[in-house]
Amino acid sequence: MTGRVYGVGLGPGDPDLMSVRADRIVRSARHVAFFRKSGRKGHARRIVDGMLCPDVIEFAMEYPVTTEIPFSDPRYNEMLSGFYEDCVAYIKTLTEIGEDVAVLCEGDPFFYGSFMHLYMRLRDDTPVTVIPAITGMSGAWTATGEPITWGDDVMTVLMGTLPVATLTRAMSNADALVVMKIGRHLPKVRSALEAAGMADRAWLVQYAAMEAQTVAPLSEVSGDVTPYFSIIVVHGQGRRP
Amino acid sequence: MTGRVYGVGLGPGDPDLMSVRADRIVRSARHVAFFRKSGRKGHARRIVDGMLCPDVIEFAMEYPVTTEIPFSDPRYNEMLSGFYEDCVAYIKTLTEIGEDVAVLCEGDPFFYGSFMHLYMRLRDDTPVTVIPAITGMSGAWTATGEPITWGDDVMTVLMGTLPVATLTRAMSNADALVVMKIGRHLPKVRSALEAAGMADRAWLVQYAAMEAQTVAPLSEVSGDVTPYFSIIVVHGQGRRP
Repeated sequence: MTGRVYGVGLGPGDPDLMSVRADRIVRSARHVAFFRKSGRKGHARRIVDGMLCPDVIEFAMEYPVTTEIPFSDPRYNEMLSGFYEDCVAYIKTLTEIGEDVAVLCEGDPFFYGSFMHLYMRLRDDTPVTVIPAITGMSGAWTATGEPITWGDDVMTVLMGTLPVATLTRAMSNADALVVMKIGRHLPKVRSALEAAGMADRAWLVQYAAMEAQTVAPLSEVSGDVTPYFSIIVVHGQGRRP
Repeated sequence: MTGRVYGVGLGPGDPDLMSVRADRIVRSARHVAFFRKSGRKGHARRIVDGMLCPDVIEFAMEYPVTTEIPFSDPRYNEMLSGFYEDCVAYIKTLTEIGEDVAVLCEGDPFFYGSFMHLYMRLRDDTPVTVIPAITGMSGAWTATGEPITWGDDVMTVLMGTLPVATLTRAMSNADALVVMKIGRHLPKVRSALEAAGMADRAWLVQYAAMEAQTVAPLSEVSGDVTPYFSIIVVHGQGRRP
């Protein structure tokens, strides 16, 4: 009997926003695995604080690199690829003796998540179930208190890591906008928003659905770097009876 | 003491995918309101079957019109606007005597939802709390078994009601794609996908996260009309170590 891997989406950060199914799987899991930056507790792990079984066995998967090497450096892909292979090897030692493993995922597992790299390496020979979740961006637009899309608004999701020309072109074709992975790309994202005529409608949400949540018009935010959990939201203006 | 309105996102359709918070609010609500097409049970209402209090008071808000009149007809806006005003008037008779009202919302309330039309008319003088939820599109891409976005993929969400030129231009600028509100617009959406060179990567998901769920490559789907709960998904191909 092979065990099953669960890619458990935890949602934007508030445990109360986990799905009923995710909540049940997390509370009953014997083995949980989660990604984290070396030296940190791990955000996914923090969300489930106080929820795990007393006899749970935890496996922290520590990224060998996050932003120290650019994506374009071939060493980046090599190091990450080897890391994911090691994680999968560990998980398989458990499933092969019939143990289930719950992999804790921030947000929705199939939406820009790290779990996908395990999933693609597991799915051919290991049973995997993916539990969708509330995305971080849903948490962010809910925090602004304004609906994100109306009628037939076009919504586009962009990563701040993209070149400014790509950002500007995509923004110009969108009614509603979400920008993630901002970090030190904030000045570039600002320039693109200005070029697309959207800067004065942009909001910056930090730590959506977490205790430290802040919401502010981007025009009132100073500084060139945002924390990891930052999302820019531009609301659509579509048809509304 | 004024009562509070809860815009409760129910997610894509499986009650097990409601958030822990939504589940708790639904199970304890004395008053629930939900939209439905005249003569139907209502999809939101169906999701919570078996979960409501024995003494719950239900308020079915029946659309005076859905697709019988085009959006562009001024009567459409007039009828809908009057309808939303009536719904709000009823809800306020409850909140003004201190009763809370849970409005049941398919998907995420702030993402192309009808609740937003109540929200905008309530929020200035009535306490409203919005509970985000798993979107229908998350349910759809999870159903395909393929991650929707990788690395810095650009994702765009489109409504099938848009003109073919708008659809094609937006598709051409996207790596990953979600198309909703397809219905009888399927031939137009197909043409746009072909023009954008994405038709052979498109999947049609019907009734995601519901019992009747089906997933198929769009190229294998015949017919010119899809049911209401149909979502087209084109997966991104971005960076993957």
